Amino acid sequence: MLTKEIRFASRPAGLPTLDNFDMTESEVPELQDGEVLLRTLYLSVDPYLRGRMREGKSYVEPFEIGQVIVSAVVGEVAESRTPAFSPGAIVSGHLGWRTYNVAKAVELMPIVPGVSPSTALGVLGIPGLTAYFGLLDIGQPKAGETVVVSGAAGAVGMTVCQIAKIKGCQVIGIAGSDEKNKYLHDELGVEKTINYKTAGNMFEALQQACPNGIDVYFDNVGGVVSDSVLPLINEHARIVLCGLISIYNSEKPEVGVKPQPFLLVRSALMRGFIITQYASRFGEGIGQLAQWFTSGQLKHVETIVEGFENTPKAFIGLFKGENLGKQVVKV
Amino acid sequence: MLTKEIRFASRPAGLPTLDNFDMTESEVPELQDGEVLLRTLYLSVDPYLRGRMREGKSYVEPFEIGQVIVSAVVGEVAESRTPAFSPGAIVSGHLGWRTYNVAKAVELMPIVPGVSPSTALGVLGIPGLTAYFGLLDIGQPKAGETVVVSGAAGAVGMTVCQIAKIKGCQVIGIAGSDEKNKYLHDELGVEKTINYKTAGNMFEALQQACPNGIDVYFDNVGGVVSDSVLPLINEHARIVLCGLISIYNSEKPEVGVKPQPFLLVRSALMRGFIITQYASRFGEGIGQLAQWFTSGQLKHVETIVEGFENTPKAFIGLFKGENLGKQVVKV
Repeated sequence: MLTKEIRFASRPAGLPTLDNFDMTESEVPELQDGEVLLRTLYLSVDPYLRGRMREGKSYVEPFEIGQVIVSAVVGEVAESRTPAFSPGAIVSGHLGWRTYNVAKAVELMPIVPGVSPSTALGVLGIPGLTAYFGLLDIGQPKAGETVVVSGAAGAVGMTVCQIAKIKGCQVIGIAGSDEKNKYLHDELGVEKTINYKTAGNMFEALQQACPNGIDVYFDNVGGVVSDSVLPLINEHARIVLCGLISIYNSEKPEVGVKPQPFLLVRSALMRGFIITQYASRFGEGIGQLAQWFTSGQLKHVETIVEGFENTPKAFIGLFKGENLGKQVVKV
Repeated sequence: MLTKEIRFASRPAGLPTLDNFDMTESEVPELQDGEVLLRTLYLSVDPYLRGRMREGKSYVEPFEIGQVIVSAVVGEVAESRTPAFSPGAIVSGHLGWRTYNVAKAVELMPIVPGVSPSTALGVLGIPGLTAYFGLLDIGQPKAGETVVVSGAAGAVGMTVCQIAKIKGCQVIGIAGSDEKNKYLHDELGVEKTINYKTAGNMFEALQQACPNGIDVYFDNVGGVVSDSVLPLINEHARIVLCGLISIYNSEKPEVGVKPQPFLLVRSALMRGFIITQYASRFGEGIGQLAQWFTSGQLKHVETIVEGFENTPKAFIGLFKGENLGKQVVKV
C-alpha cells in the first residue's frame, strides 16, 4: 500500500517556496505490535516549522534534506495492532506530512470527545496549549489589566485574546487586515484592534488604545510592532515571547531597539518558552480549554485548505497572513 | 548651625561634569520630636543616580534642579529627639549629600554591630541586597551552573561573583582592567575573568571561558558586552538586568542586537528589577549577607575618596571605571 508524502527538498532562503518541498510516494511499512495505521484527516501547518528548515538548532532539531516534514496531524485509525485504539478512533499526534502514517500508540492522543476533529490542531491542540500556558503561566494577567496581543488573528493569538477576556482583562489585538480585526472585535469581543499595516505610527496607535499602559504583551510577531510596545509597558509588565513570525524568514540577527532599558526601568520580565516544557501539564490545559470551548466561552476559528497536495502552499501562506485563526489542511 | 550640601545644578548631557553640581551651605533645621541630627561619616555614589538626573521618570522620580542630591549615607547620631537612637549610634539611611542631615527615626536603620560602618553602603547595604535578590531570586543559580557577571569589579558585581561562588557555580567575571580582574581572581576566587577592553572579540572570549554555555547572566553594563552573551545562553537561561552603565549617559534609545530571538529559542528569561520591590525581605537579605561576611565567605571591597567636596568627582569616576568595589566618600 502506498502513501503520498511531502519531503523537505531544500533549505529556503527567505520566504519558503514550493521548490523547497517534494511530493513523493512510498510504501507503507507493515504494522508492528503496538502500532496503528492512521489515515490523515487534517494536517497542521505552523509558523514555527520555518525554524526547523534552517541549518543548526532552533527550538528543536532541524529537518534534514530529504526527510518527510513533521507536524501535528489528526487521523482516523484504519488498522490497529494495539488495544489502545480501535479502527475508527480519531486521534492526534506529531506525524509526517503523509496521507497514511504508521504510529506507535504512545505517540498518539485521543481527541476530546464530541468536538470537531480539527479542533485538535487549534484551540484544543498545541496552539491552544501555547496560548494557555504562555498567557497564564508567564503573562499572569489579572482582572482589569491591559493585555496586548500581536498576531492576534492567528491560531495562538485568537486563543490568547479570548482567554485574556475570560480573565477580565482589557484586550488589544494587533493584526494585519481590517477584515481580521473586524472578526476579532465582532465575533471574539476584542475591545480594541490595530491594523499594523495601516496604523501609520504604531507607538501612537498603541498609546491611544492603551491609556493605562500595557501590563502583558503576548508577542507572536517581533519586529517593529513589538518595538512600539516597549515604551508603554507598566511596572512589573510581562512580555511573553511566543513567536517572531516577522523575522522567521530573515537570515541575519535582528538589529533594532533593544528592550533592556525598558525592562530595567519598569522592573519588567521578558520570557521565551517552548510548549513542550509544559508537557506534564497538558492534561490540565486541555481540560480547561475544552471546558471553556464546550461552554461557548472559547471559539475555535480555522481556515481550511483542501487537498494534501496544497499543504506547502498553505504553509507559505502563513507568512503572507492568509489565515484567519488556525490554518489547517483537509486531506 | 550650618551644613554643607551639594545641589543638583543642571541636567548632564552625556557624561556628568562638575558643573552639574553646586556646593552650598544651609542652616540645619531645628530637631522635631522623632528626629535625629546625623553627622555624615560616609556617602555612597551610585551609577543609578545618573538615571535620576534625566528628565522624566526612570526607576524613581527625577531630581529637580536645585534640590540636594540624595543617596545612601552612613552617619553618627549627634543629637536625638527619639528613643530609637541615642547620640553616638551609627545608622544608615537614604539622605541628602550634606555634612549634617536631620532625619526621622523611621527612615534610618542601625548598622550591623561590630563591622566597619562603610559596609552599610556596600556588601551589607543596598549593593549587597541588590546582588543577593537579583542573583538568587531572579537568577536562581544552581550548583555547577555557569554564571557570567558584567561590571564584576563594582560593588554589586563583586558581591554577585562571591554569592555565585558560595552557591557552587562556575563564575566568569567581566571587568575593564587587568588589575581589577587580578583582584577578582586572586582575592575573590573568580575562576575566569575577561577584560572587555582588551579581549578583542567578546563573543569568542566568552565562548572560550564558558565551554558549557551560560546559565545565568547578571548584567550591570548592557551594550556590546551583553550582546555577546546572547548566542551562548543555555536553555532556560536567566538574564538579570541590574544596570546598564554603558548607556546611562546616552540620550538616545539603544539600537543593537535584539535579544528576543535568543530568548525565544532558548526558552530563556530576561528580567529587570528595582531593589525596593524586595523591601519586605531586606531583613532576610542583610541577615544572610552579614552571616557570610562575618564568617569570611563574603568580602567587602571599597574605594574611598576623602572629603565631602570630592563627592561629585567620585560620582563621575564611576563612569570611567575608577572604582574597585564600592565607591564611597569619607566625609
